[in-house]
Amino acid sequence: MGKAALNEAARMVEVEWSDGGVSRFPYVWLRDNCQCPQCFNPDSLSRRVLMNDLDVNVSPVRVELQAKGSLLSVEWPQGHESQYDCHWLRERCFSPQALSERERDWQKRTQLWGAELAHNLPKADFPAILTDDRALHDFLVVLDSVGLVLVQNVPCDVGQVERLANRVAFLKPTSYGLEFEVVKKPKPNDLAYTTVKIGLHTDLNYYSYRPGVQMLHCIEQTRGEGGDNSLTDGINAAYQLKKENPDAFRLLTTLKVNFYCTGVDLYKFFFRQRRNVISLNDQGEVQSVSFSDQARDSILDLPADQVQPFYDALKAFDTIMYLPRNCLRFKMAAGEMIAFDNTRSLHGRSAYSLVDSTRHLQGGYFDWDEIYSRMRVLKVDLGIKDKVT
Amino acid sequence: MGKAALNEAARMVEVEWSDGGVSRFPYVWLRDNCQCPQCFNPDSLSRRVLMNDLDVNVSPVRVELQAKGSLLSVEWPQGHESQYDCHWLRERCFSPQALSERERDWQKRTQLWGAELAHNLPKADFPAILTDDRALHDFLVVLDSVGLVLVQNVPCDVGQVERLANRVAFLKPTSYGLEFEVVKKPKPNDLAYTTVKIGLHTDLNYYSYRPGVQMLHCIEQTRGEGGDNSLTDGINAAYQLKKENPDAFRLLTTLKVNFYCTGVDLYKFFFRQRRNVISLNDQGEVQSVSFSDQARDSILDLPADQVQPFYDALKAFDTIMYLPRNCLRFKMAAGEMIAFDNTRSLHGRSAYSLVDSTRHLQGGYFDWDEIYSRMRVLKVDLGIKDKVT
Repeated sequence: MGKAALNEAARMVEVEWSDGGVSRFPYVWLRDNCQCPQCFNPDSLSRRVLMNDLDVNVSPVRVELQAKGSLLSVEWPQGHESQYDCHWLRERCFSPQALSERERDWQKRTQLWGAELAHNLPKADFPAILTDDRALHDFLVVLDSVGLVLVQNVPCDVGQVERLANRVAFLKPTSYGLEFEVVKKPKPNDLAYTTVKIGLHTDLNYYSYRPGVQMLHCIEQTRGEGGDNSLTDGINAAYQLKKENPDAFRLLTTLKVNFYCTGVDLYKFFFRQRRNVISLNDQGEVQSVSFSDQARDSILDLPADQVQPFYDALKAFDTIMYLPRNCLRFKMAAGEMIAFDNTRSLHGRSAYSLVDSTRHLQGGYFDWDEIYSRMRVLKVDLGIKDKVT
Repeated sequence: MGKAALNEAARMVEVEWSDGGVSRFPYVWLRDNCQCPQCFNPDSLSRRVLMNDLDVNVSPVRVELQAKGSLLSVEWPQGHESQYDCHWLRERCFSPQALSERERDWQKRTQLWGAELAHNLPKADFPAILTDDRALHDFLVVLDSVGLVLVQNVPCDVGQVERLANRVAFLKPTSYGLEFEVVKKPKPNDLAYTTVKIGLHTDLNYYSYRPGVQMLHCIEQTRGEGGDNSLTDGINAAYQLKKENPDAFRLLTTLKVNFYCTGVDLYKFFFRQRRNVISLNDQGEVQSVSFSDQARDSILDLPADQVQPFYDALKAFDTIMYLPRNCLRFKMAAGEMIAFDNTRSLHGRSAYSLVDSTRHLQGGYFDWDEIYSRMRVLKVDLGIKDKVT
């Protein structure tokens, strides 16, 4: 820093950097973020100043640069003194340019895909993910941006989804337990546990906190016909709908649909949730999709004359999802696992027949909160500069 | 039902009820919700009809009433026949009145409170909750509407928050584990693990999926001064802010604040999340609050000239939270547990001294998805007519 001065009118400290640029730091923000041990706990890296004790109208008595311009020193009334490192300050600059750079770091780097992804399916090696931090990092980066990774060389026994989840953080428990077995069951509480075709869907739309990522690990695949998985990028499909049928897009982003599920698994459950089929973020970008033929409630809370337009919109979205250019199909082999963004990548499977074999997938979930935390830690540990949302 | 007829112009079946009322059911909705075993799986209680196979322009060939008007029978092209029970239909009526009744069932029944709640604190008996379904139901209903319950007669050893969570569903795991011990620790990764005052806050604002409910179980209380808990209804405080300082309310419902936490517990973590301090639902009602002096990031992504107004707004909200009329204070005794809505009820504690004693709280979380599911199941099992969100 070359200069520092008080701007009483703006109630900000103005700092001139050695490169000539100027940053302005509001008084109240500086006082609130004093880094001295009395105001900031170095063990927990957290603020000790309580808003309740903060004078939001505080003004510095004086400012000066110290340590050859690498420290900004601010003296407050009653003699409290704060020192701010120049790099620390620069990372917190309030200029439009700095804000727009930081804004970019928050943007999810979504790579849209269609059926062509089958020729170039993102792959990861299970043993490498489990043992190598860089492999784990790269796996999570692709899972975040593409929303689908084929994990290979997975041992053909149960417990592998848990091993992968534990490498990130932990399995997300649901009413179906920590893991669930996708096999034909005598009294199925879900169509997944039959041999029928399952349409493209996202899981657990009847939860407010839907699982972020789903893993499906193929332990045994049927030797008979069928049992292929279908996968579609729901965000890509939603953008195609927006372009081709803006009215349908508008309906699916505004009308609430009920999802529900009731039955018994670990215990009796009865879930209900209302949500838009297509959810937008604050910037109007498609953030997630919620779709399931199976779990969509027959109770539809719409005026009668909106029902046909709603179905037309849902059909239009569904049709796009299944277009050959959008829907990727492949039959997992034993020892393979797919991991996909459950809020984005729709999955389904074709009907199958069991010939001298069973079909056994083990499934499990983990959440984006833990994934992003893990990615940030790995980036720090591995010295990767790339920011993560 | 007294009569049923096709209305080709509207593409709806019109049903006249025995009481004279008329309901209209759109053709496409009826076909989509055929309840025959081919279209609907009675084991999983879910739709088998795939949107992909549904003709959204389908029209019935004819309708008729059967079984003395208790069944609506619809014949579709290609001879498929659907039968709908009259009670089932009535529960799905699309009339404005029926929609508005169902809308009411979705509304959360929030009971706002202030410090006066101390004289009438909602209480629950731990052994009763664990063994009696009605007691569990009543506990959850109050937890939902008030957002705070004092649970009494809890054994004074660890593991009780898990027992309570397991009675509802399961503990929500976080980076701090399934349970966490609030005691003075030598190298605290959180100010909770010191003896200093902790300001009013909600937990884990740096998660996208914040824990829904927090339990704090007092296993041992300090015999020294302090260690009282403070609790404020954040939704009530937000509405007071809206009334007294609409500009501040507008800022806190629109400006995004960064929350963060980094450190080591079960493993290294590094969480970041942006959110409004006050969140509104689609109806503009206050839905939740996110507040923490400790976890609010020093990186503030606002233009410089919005910083002072933001702090003024935060200070105004904070001041309301701490008003004696709003902030309830009491010192938990060993064998007591508070359970509160972490998205609404702000909690804090006064500084404390340790005199010939330790202070040991055990904490844990569980989520609203599981709570609402459990409440619905209990209502069905206990024959309680009241609906739940």
